[in-house]
Amino acid sequence: MTRTTPAGTPLGDEFHVYDTTLRDGAQREGISYSVTDKIAVARLLDSLGVGFIEGGWPGALPKDTEFFHRAAAGELELRHAALVAFGSTRRAGTQAHDDPQVRALLDSQAPVVTLVAKSDRRHIERALRTDVAENCAMVADTVRFLVGEGRRVFLDAEHFFDGYAFDPDTSLRVLEAAAGAGADVVVLCDTNGGQLPTQLAETVTEVVARTGFRVGIHCQDDTGCAVANTVAAAQAGATHVQCTANGYGERAGNADLFPVIGNLATKLDMPVLPEGRLAELTRVSHAIAEIANLAPDTHQAYVGTSTFAHKAGLHASAIKVDPELYNHIDPARVGNGMRVLVTEMAGRASLELKGAELGMDLSDSPDAVTGAVRRVKELEARGWSFEAADASLELLLRREVAAAEGEQAPPDAPFELESYRVLLDHAQDGSVVSEATVKVHVGQERVIATAEGNGPVNALDAALRKALVPHLPWVESVELADYKVRILTDTHGTEAVTRVLVESRDGDQEWTTVGVHGSIVEASWLALCDALAFKAMRRDAVASRKS
Amino acid sequence: MTRTTPAGTPLGDEFHVYDTTLRDGAQREGISYSVTDKIAVARLLDSLGVGFIEGGWPGALPKDTEFFHRAAAGELELRHAALVAFGSTRRAGTQAHDDPQVRALLDSQAPVVTLVAKSDRRHIERALRTDVAENCAMVADTVRFLVGEGRRVFLDAEHFFDGYAFDPDTSLRVLEAAAGAGADVVVLCDTNGGQLPTQLAETVTEVVARTGFRVGIHCQDDTGCAVANTVAAAQAGATHVQCTANGYGERAGNADLFPVIGNLATKLDMPVLPEGRLAELTRVSHAIAEIANLAPDTHQAYVGTSTFAHKAGLHASAIKVDPELYNHIDPARVGNGMRVLVTEMAGRASLELKGAELGMDLSDSPDAVTGAVRRVKELEARGWSFEAADASLELLLRREVAAAEGEQAPPDAPFELESYRVLLDHAQDGSVVSEATVKVHVGQERVIATAEGNGPVNALDAALRKALVPHLPWVESVELADYKVRILTDTHGTEAVTRVLVESRDGDQEWTTVGVHGSIVEASWLALCDALAFKAMRRDAVASRKS
Repeated sequence: MTRTTPAGTPLGDEFHVYDTTLRDGAQREGISYSVTDKIAVARLLDSLGVGFIEGGWPGALPKDTEFFHRAAAGELELRHAALVAFGSTRRAGTQAHDDPQVRALLDSQAPVVTLVAKSDRRHIERALRTDVAENCAMVADTVRFLVGEGRRVFLDAEHFFDGYAFDPDTSLRVLEAAAGAGADVVVLCDTNGGQLPTQLAETVTEVVARTGFRVGIHCQDDTGCAVANTVAAAQAGATHVQCTANGYGERAGNADLFPVIGNLATKLDMPVLPEGRLAELTRVSHAIAEIANLAPDTHQAYVGTSTFAHKAGLHASAIKVDPELYNHIDPARVGNGMRVLVTEMAGRASLELKGAELGMDLSDSPDAVTGAVRRVKELEARGWSFEAADASLELLLRREVAAAEGEQAPPDAPFELESYRVLLDHAQDGSVVSEATVKVHVGQERVIATAEGNGPVNALDAALRKALVPHLPWVESVELADYKVRILTDTHGTEAVTRVLVESRDGDQEWTTVGVHGSIVEASWLALCDALAFKAMRRDAVASRKS
Repeated sequence: MTRTTPAGTPLGDEFHVYDTTLRDGAQREGISYSVTDKIAVARLLDSLGVGFIEGGWPGALPKDTEFFHRAAAGELELRHAALVAFGSTRRAGTQAHDDPQVRALLDSQAPVVTLVAKSDRRHIERALRTDVAENCAMVADTVRFLVGEGRRVFLDAEHFFDGYAFDPDTSLRVLEAAAGAGADVVVLCDTNGGQLPTQLAETVTEVVARTGFRVGIHCQDDTGCAVANTVAAAQAGATHVQCTANGYGERAGNADLFPVIGNLATKLDMPVLPEGRLAELTRVSHAIAEIANLAPDTHQAYVGTSTFAHKAGLHASAIKVDPELYNHIDPARVGNGMRVLVTEMAGRASLELKGAELGMDLSDSPDAVTGAVRRVKELEARGWSFEAADASLELLLRREVAAAEGEQAPPDAPFELESYRVLLDHAQDGSVVSEATVKVHVGQERVIATAEGNGPVNALDAALRKALVPHLPWVESVELADYKVRILTDTHGTEAVTRVLVESRDGDQEWTTVGVHGSIVEASWLALCDALAFKAMRRDAVASRKS
């Protein structure tokens, strides 16, 4: 059996950062993890340094049973966190050691078990259809049995806050049953998420004072206050906070692990992670979103890509001088960075700042800045957006600089397009085929290539690579890392257009380009061309530095 | 000049719900309103019954100047809200009545003006490059001038909380300068968004006690606590809350108007909206997202489409009996509704619940439920998702019921497809053409039709309509209301597939269907077919009720 306390954090077992992304977080609409996904998420959380990782509900969900099996077999070695299995108490009228659900918790080999129990009399009577005495016996028996088997046990007191407001004695009896039988932490759960921080903190203070038990907190976000509630509970005496990565969870979600850690660490000076790990916050957040197959929330506190981004106008010139006046913390502390947004509202100051961020000094190129502002506005009016497409923006800026200074501009692509054609056939036998032909000029040669793909864009990308690789072998190293499509509907009185963002990578770096057109295929084509043009420009820059 | 106090709310002028969606909210990355958009947003906010609508910054942004001009010319008649112009104080070393920015505020004809002023000594000295005395004079002069011109004036004290922590005397002097010159409300702004509720509430209490001024609150969401901070400030004595619809705003955003209203109204029993308007909360939230051209946040507190959605498993059977045990409020109070999600984790209970929601009693059709569970699981494994596609799910359920009972199932589409072909040409002259040909059988006839479109899906849709309308005239009434594309990347080890959601409408109702395929065109085709099949089924149902 492995560790039951957090390792490597300055606070040790005194304060628990407890993650339930893999159990409660998996309840979020749209999430479905494979077992391999779950192991990858657990590794990321462990690398961040959380104290506990709740892996799932063995015995209830086959994937979760398999997760614990594979973890115990050595596939998941945790350096910081203790692994936790979640489950319910024995059923009414049975013995704990006979209950197959309780057995499954032991079989999971997780060293820590969190049991969920009802602590609202209405739920005990109406949903569980038993009485308070039997409910308390179910809790006490199950805790005692698992502690006897060497497990560390926590109790999730479901619907605690609503129950405590309705009938405090029942709710406290449930906590006493657990603590009396050996549970280490009683976790007060705002299961329906209806609490506000002031009231919730009062209840936490009162429960700590009345019971003396070690208290934890579990908040749902139905009032939009889950992060605030969790932090307020910690200030009121809770020493165990249950969160999920990116706030994933049922309904409005759970308390978001990343802002909770950000607030505890930077606002309350609580060293809740191992030394040096706070700067991993942004990376881990985005990596888990990737595994969950959800777009990261760009406006998420602490870790969103927009969260330290400043639009131009009012502040742009002041930010140039004094960035710390405009950020609540230095974004580097949480592994995030400041960005300047290039948008319709942007003027010269923000394009210059953006240029500096991309390593270009535009202060001596007023004509290039004028040209770039005009060009950006013109494209944005047609649906382009450079906020996420730094590589396309850098190409645009470099072309304007070259034009202003009479130098050679980076070309549109490292080849010339003659034409392309894509054919999509749904044949009478039901088969669906996408086939693309490109005709391009590379160097002195005219090349024609045809390829099939699983869709029109894939076929076009394949045909282009087939045409280029014999002449430009480096094209092979560029792979498509991500591809996003946004339909810009005609709420603004124009024809609908499609905006495509292509994220490319080559082992060393990643870069994002944009294309806009009425046809998704042409929009994708434009973004693909920019991606190759950007890579070619970078190669030329490296070559000229070497020579 | 029109009203300067809220009309129609039980609290009257005692408590201000102040909306700044159109000014501070417009700072959000990706938002760009036209003047017509701004008028539409203002009408929605007024229909909800907020007390103040800050329309923009006349004189600084040409669109905002035009907005106020068009509003004053009669294009915007507000029934509940007072219209507010936002702007800065006179510049250092000038006279208020000479300052063109201050003049623009008068020219806007807005009856209320909110002035922004620095209240953090570091900002006064380092960003504004003046001293505290001159800063206070700028505030007092400008307030006095505008009040003299008949305007009601509020002061936004920028960076107040950081400033007050650093040098409280300076921050209080700025408030005194404003209140002494006739400002009605001094708004404490957490401009960098670094506050937590406990500390923020203490400061609000202290400022109210020390000054006796009417205090407002403006929070940014950089700690993920903007909603909680706003509510905590109201509990601590603030009687004016500044928010933005859906929390739109710079960086992590602003305090979200909808959960703030939800919390004040349902948790603190404050009647902040006119009678009956709370039930408009969800509709107004989604309508503003539509105008902002942003997808609504499905997990937003109170108003998200997932916010009262319950995944199956643990709770499904209990929810059937006792829904109020599982929701923090009755969703109908805020115009939202409970949903049951059909997902991988779903079992029989949730499919039955979902059926009931769609008006189908499945309790007597155990075989149909078995078949439906199997079919949903099989499709979900291939990337389908029915969570947002109720129409596709209803077709699936009805087909399973028909199969189980030996009845005729709703057909895949109101025609038979022989084949289609889509051709995308990027010609040598740079022109891009999308052309589609469909061959279908409608009734007894074989029909071939060809059409062009601005992209492959549009061309295919056009060709299909061209083929069908002469034979099925009702097809013409079905229009495509929205179209969403999601690329499911291969993080799960499979080939990337494309999931398309099509929202259709016909004047009476809207419905959503889903299609999944490697090719975006085939995925769109499947969703389009389902959309027509659904409409045909509904027509048949109406016809059989009439006969």
